[in-house]
Order: sequence, then C-alpha cells, then structure tokens
Amino acid sequence: MLPRLVSSAIHRSIRIPPPAFLAVLYGVLIAAGTALLMLPGATTQPIGWSDALFTATSAVTVTGLSVVDTGGGFTGFGQAIVLALIQLGGLGLMTFAVLVLSLLGLPVGLPHRIILREDLNQTSVGDLLRLVKAIFRTVLVCELVGTGLLAFVFVPEAGWRTGLWQALFHAVSAFNNAGFALFPDSMTRWAGNPLVNLTVPALIVIGGIGFSVLSDLRKMRGWRALSLHSKLMLVGTAGLIVWAFAAFAVLEWTNPQTLGALPGVPERLMASWFQAVTTRTAGFNTVDIAGLHDPTALMFMLLMVIGGGSTSTAGGIKVTTFIVLILATVAFFKRRSALRAFGRSIGLEEVLKVLALAMVSLLVVMAALFLVTGTHDGDFLALAFEVTSAFGTVGLSRGATGDLDELGRAVIVAVMFIGRVGPLTLGFFLATRMPPRTRYPSARVFLG
Amino acid sequence: MLPRLVSSAIHRSIRIPPPAFLAVLYGVLIAAGTALLMLPGATTQPIGWSDALFTATSAVTVTGLSVVDTGGGFTGFGQAIVLALIQLGGLGLMTFAVLVLSLLGLPVGLPHRIILREDLNQTSVGDLLRLVKAIFRTVLVCELVGTGLLAFVFVPEAGWRTGLWQALFHAVSAFNNAGFALFPDSMTRWAGNPLVNLTVPALIVIGGIGFSVLSDLRKMRGWRALSLHSKLMLVGTAGLIVWAFAAFAVLEWTNPQTLGALPGVPERLMASWFQAVTTRTAGFNTVDIAGLHDPTALMFMLLMVIGGGSTSTAGGIKVTTFIVLILATVAFFKRRSALRAFGRSIGLEEVLKVLALAMVSLLVVMAALFLVTGTHDGDFLALAFEVTSAFGTVGLSRGATGDLDELGRAVIVAVMFIGRVGPLTLGFFLATRMPPRTRYPSARVFLG
Ligand SMILES: [K+]
Ligand SMILES: [K+]
Repeated sequence: MLPRLVSSAIHRSIRIPPPAFLAVLYGVLIAAGTALLMLPGATTQPIGWSDALFTATSAVTVTGLSVVDTGGGFTGFGQAIVLALIQLGGLGLMTFAVLVLSLLGLPVGLPHRIILREDLNQTSVGDLLRLVKAIFRTVLVCELVGTGLLAFVFVPEAGWRTGLWQALFHAVSAFNNAGFALFPDSMTRWAGNPLVNLTVPALIVIGGIGFSVLSDLRKMRGWRALSLHSKLMLVGTAGLIVWAFAAFAVLEWTNPQTLGALPGVPERLMASWFQAVTTRTAGFNTVDIAGLHDPTALMFMLLMVIGGGSTSTAGGIKVTTFIVLILATVAFFKRRSALRAFGRSIGLEEVLKVLALAMVSLLVVMAALFLVTGTHDGDFLALAFEVTSAFGTVGLSRGATGDLDELGRAVIVAVMFIGRVGPLTLGFFLATRMPPRTRYPSARVFLG
Repeated sequence: MLPRLVSSAIHRSIRIPPPAFLAVLYGVLIAAGTALLMLPGATTQPIGWSDALFTATSAVTVTGLSVVDTGGGFTGFGQAIVLALIQLGGLGLMTFAVLVLSLLGLPVGLPHRIILREDLNQTSVGDLLRLVKAIFRTVLVCELVGTGLLAFVFVPEAGWRTGLWQALFHAVSAFNNAGFALFPDSMTRWAGNPLVNLTVPALIVIGGIGFSVLSDLRKMRGWRALSLHSKLMLVGTAGLIVWAFAAFAVLEWTNPQTLGALPGVPERLMASWFQAVTTRTAGFNTVDIAGLHDPTALMFMLLMVIGGGSTSTAGGIKVTTFIVLILATVAFFKRRSALRAFGRSIGLEEVLKVLALAMVSLLVVMAALFLVTGTHDGDFLALAFEVTSAFGTVGLSRGATGDLDELGRAVIVAVMFIGRVGPLTLGFFLATRMPPRTRYPSARVFLG
C-alpha cells in the first residue's frame, strides 16, 4: 500500500517539470536534515536554526563549508546525519528514488526515468536502470576500499572505534567530493602521509569524473572506443590536475604560510598534488587556504568554477563545459562552423548551452558577491573566494564563513543550492518557454 | 612623389593581415608619442621612459590612466602632444590614413578600404569613404561646440588663454572617451556644475555610441527605419545609463567619501548621472573612486568590461556584444535556434564570435590580474579594478596606478593596447587559420 502511494504521489508530482521536481526534492532533504541536526542528541552544544540549515545545505549540496566544527560540534549521531546527507546529496536523490522503487519490485516507469535523466544528464533513457545499479556497486566498492585503506592511518592514531568511524567518514566525504572533515584544519595534519595522499585523491577523482565515464571505462575497449565525452573528461581532468599541481607548487613553494611551512621536498610535492586534485570540487586541504598568495587564490577560484565531471558528485560548470568554451573560441578563430575534438564535431547548439550556462553562473556569482560585499566589511578577495567556493560546491574557505551574518549565510546557502541543482535549472525557472514562432528576417550587429 | 611612395608602402604592407597592420600602426604611434613626451620641453620635470611610454599608451588607447599629473607634470606643449595622441587614437589611425590619402587626391583603393573596414568594423566597403568624411565633420562640430560650452565654465575661472585651452582639452578628451583631465582630481571640482554635467556626458555619449549609429540617426527616418544595430545601441546605452544611475545613487547616497560628501540632493543626482555615463568607457569622475563601497566597485568593473559602441571611441567588449550574450542565454532557455531582437534574428555564428570575444577578454584580464597581484602586495580589489579599467580603456582608478613597478606598468600598458586594438585582434595572432577540412562525424558531450 505504502509503496503504491509513494509511486502514485511521485507520478502526480511529475506533471511539474523535472528540474523543478529535483529542486523541490533537494529542498525537502535539506529541510529534513536541518530538523534532524536540531535534535538535542546531534550536537555537543545547542545550535541555532541558521547553523543547522547552513550545515544541512552544505552537506546535501556536498559543499563542505561549515559554521559548526563537524568533529567537535556534532556528536557521533550528528556526524552520522551529516554523512547520510552527503551520501544522499552526492549520489543524487533520483538515483535513490529509482533504486528504492525497483528494490520494492515496482516497475520503473518512464516518468521516473525522465527525472533521472535530468539528474544524471543522460540522453539514452533505456540504459538508466543499469547505470543506477552500476553506480550503487561502484559507490559501495570505492567507499569500502577507501575506508579500509584510511583505517590503516586512523585506527593506530585513534583506536578501533573512533579510527574506523573517521576512516568511513572521510572515505564517503572524499568519494562524494563533499570536503567535510572531522578535524578542524581539514586534512592538514596528514599533509605528509603518503596513504592519505593516495587514497583521498583517488576517491575524489573516481567520484568526480562522472559515472558515464566510469561505465565507459569498465567496458575495457581501449582508448579509441571511448566516447568523445569520456576522452574529453580524461584528458581534461589530467590536464587540469597537472596544470594545478605545477602552478600551485611554483607559486607557493616558499610561502611560509603554506608549502614553505612543510619540512621537505616530498611533503611539498605531496601537498601540491593533494591540492591540485581537491581544489576543483572536493574541498579538502592540507595547507592553510587563508595563507595562499593572491594569484594562487585567483587560480583556485578559476578551478572551483570549472569543477568536475557531469553525472558525478562534483560541482562547477563542469570540465566538459570549460573545454567546449575553449573549443568554441578556437573554432571562431579558425573560421569553422563546428567545434572539433578527437575526430568528432560538436554542433553550434551546444555552444548556446555552454554560453547560457556560463552567463547564468556569472549572474549567480556576481549577484551573490554583490550582496555579500554590500553587507560585510570583510576582505573582498576572501568574500569572492567564499562565494566561488559555494557556487562550485567546493568548500574551501579563506575564513569568511565565520564572519557571515544571517543575510550572508542565506546568500551562501542559496548559492550552494543553485551550484548543486545546476545553474541551468535556475535558468529554467527564470525563463518561460514560448512556442516556436515564424522565423524573423536576419540582421547583423557589429560586435567587439 | 612622396604620396605615391606612401601609397605604395601601404600597398606593400597590406600583404600582412589588416588586424596585424592596425596593431603595428598603433604601436608606431605609441612609440612616436613616447619619444615626443621625452622631449625636455614637454614636461615641467624630467620623466623616465616608463612614464612617457605609459602616458603615450594611455593617450593613444584613450584610456586615461596616468602616472604623471597631466595638468601639473606636462607643459602646454606636452599637453598638446597628449591631446594629439588622444585625437589620433580615438578616431582610429585608419580613418586618418584614408582621409590624408583622399585629401592628396590619391585614389582610395580597395586595400585601404579593407583596412578601414577592420578598424571601423563595417561590412559594406562602398560606404566607407563617405562615412569617414562624415566622421570628420561630426568630430569637428562636436568638439567645437563642446569647447564653446565648456569655455563658459573655464574662462571665468582661469582667464581666456588657460580657460580656452582647458575647454578644448576636456572637450576633445570627452568626445574621444579618453578621460584625461588637466585637474589632478579629474572633474571633482565641477561635481555641482550643471553645464559641465550636461556638456561632458553629451560628448561622451555621442563619441561612444558609434559612428554607424550617428549616421543612421542623421537620416532622420524614424525609429522603425533604424538598423537593428542602432536600435540595440540606443536601447542598450539608455538602459545601462539608467541602471548605473539608479544603482550608483542607491549604493553611494550616504557614503561620506563619495555622494555623501556633496552638499545637496541636486549635486548628488548630478554626480550619479555623470558617473553613470562616464564609467563604461570615458573615465572622468566627480567623486572619489577609491572611496566607493566594494559592491559599487564591482558594478563599475562590470560596466567597464561592457564598454561602449562598436565603430566608436569607446572600449570594452561593447554594448552589442553584451546584449548578444544576454539574447543568446534567453534563446537557449526558450529553446530557439536563433537570437531575436526588434523583429530581427541574429544567427548562431554571431554567438560564436561573442563567445570567443568574451573568452579572450577573460583570458587577458585574468592573466594580467595574475601577473599584477603576483608582483604587488596591494589591495586585490584595487588591482582588479585597475586591470579592468585598462582593459575597457576607461581610466578610472582606485589609486593602484601609482603603486605599480616597471613590470606592473608593462602589464597595464599591454592590457590597454589589447583593449584598444581589440581582443579579437589578439586572438587573430594567437590562432593560425586552417583551410576548411572535411566534416567530422558529430558527437555529444554532457555539459553542466
Ligand atoms: K565539496
Ligand atoms: K577612457
């Protein structure tokens, strides 16, 4: 009876457009999370609604900005709530909804699949159920292996009970690119630990590259058989990591507040590698982010806006969007009417999409920055960094989170939500769709 | 003999692509200006090469950033050199080259017209000579009328000789959107003068809206007969001025360092109007720019990037480019395959152009900001404001110009040059043109 009611309720709600449905579901999850975090047993000291809402939003959107110290402010129960919100938010509610319905033996009707399609950004509806099951397996395997590996680090330090919990928490947080850590200085104390520097970045990359790429890779058909999307994601991710690694190391090597504080060359190289992987969307850190030089902070903001892969736990405008922006620019100067990459072409209608995405993203970030700088006296760069971090659901901070008042928190909450639900979903609400009309005569405009 | 030599030399040099030719000509003018400003008679105190180069570049690119006080550091002769550089730079060297050749009775061959076409961004080659003559008349009339009007303000204050020179200087500087002023605090002392607040903004708008719009308007055929470009420019310019006026007044009304320092409501409204017109590209100011609140500075940076009209003395990505970016975003959400405005459509290939322009602009601004923040300890917002001001050839400053070392100056000089020659010209150099090849099979990529 209950499953049928749920199913029927979902069927009815499907009349609203899928993006709206998704946004509402994320909103409900945040509200539930807020209520749970307000329970007396969840925190070591009473917290306000604003703290709970901020934390729940940060967890569901897998951002990682925090106004309450996750390790010290929440009890084990509270931490488990945060972890559950991260897992639900990271994998996408729709994945779970379909999973639950299919486990209950209900037919997975087309309407659910259409919602799922919006969430996972898939074009072929038929493959989705298989994809969801594969997702579930991948998540389980990665998070368990990650927990096992991290246990070698945390258990000797903190004992079995606490150590295993820490290992599980950070494995799930890393795989979901959430960036929540149980230590107030994120992973700084593990800056020189090789196992942490291998396990956490590996989880981040696998969780953030996108399940479509993972399932493409699993088929083991060699490079040439990969889809254009997988090729772009693999090359783009590798390129961005190499670039971020080199630039970060060069810029910060002698900065006494960041890399310069680490004892030797291996530690500095490890910290550069860790930060190169985590900055685009995961949001862990092993160096003091507030201590970064200004140009490094600027580079970080760019990386945070780029983000990770589509159909992943990552945020930002996505690596492929960034690549298409570059390909479009190259196409213009080469006077081509289509974009090219790896022997495939991408049509101009995709350019319209990336342009719209970039414009709405710019609008969101600018409006938020405008509101936040208008109501806070803090350092402009720190506030810009904070807003960008929220938009990319990254969670790195130069310390501005603590200075925010209620309005500032509301802005950051809204930006995290938009960053996770996707700027294009916002645009969907802003614009009313019009029926196609007759063609207008064309005209030229002088540009640039 | 000489004209034929010049003509032949230009003919030969035309084998290099027009954008390159333009960039070289601007470069030659800057070099000549630098040498002239180094003459002992040009300055009241000896200046260095770096000061002269910075000033010459700022004048030729009609930016208005200055490292030497134009009124106090240069003699009348030096000021005249600056003014000549402004006039040559503002109208575009090509306009002058063709004018000179046609005045000498030489046939204006197609190749010159093609260069001119690049400079004025015109598509119809046939109308160009007429356009150039019309430009010359417009400039002369506007600058003389402006001088006459401003003389009513300056002559009673400073006597005939100095007053007339000040009137001419500021009229030419305003019409060319150059922003150079003979007073160290720009036009601040005239914040409450109605005649200055009418004449200077009028000259700025006429000079910055683009000659194609002016010649369209001169035909007096009513709104419906105007070209799409003219309609977009008129509506866009009016909209941006109204928006900037309202936002500036609201944000700064009680700021004791800016509008709050002015005695009454009329003065504050006048200063808001003045700043609303001048910020996008002219670069005069009647309030202290360093005293602006951070959100106002952010809004100013956006206005400076937008700039003025194509085929004008203005800089920035241009108003029409900004409008097309918005129209493209709207078109995506309305699921249209063409952009629409005023009953006309704009094709997707224009979207590729604006996207390329925006990306190259972003690259220029980010790279410059990276270099400047990496080599200067100054306030991030002040440096970002300075770079944006240089890119938009605006000339407003929060005071960072004085703090720049040689490297910082070199970066700002490069950005002013690129901002004036046009980011697309830079892209032209960066990319090698390839012959069109066979079509690639198309593929899809997940975005956003
Ligand atoms: K994150
Ligand atoms: K200017």
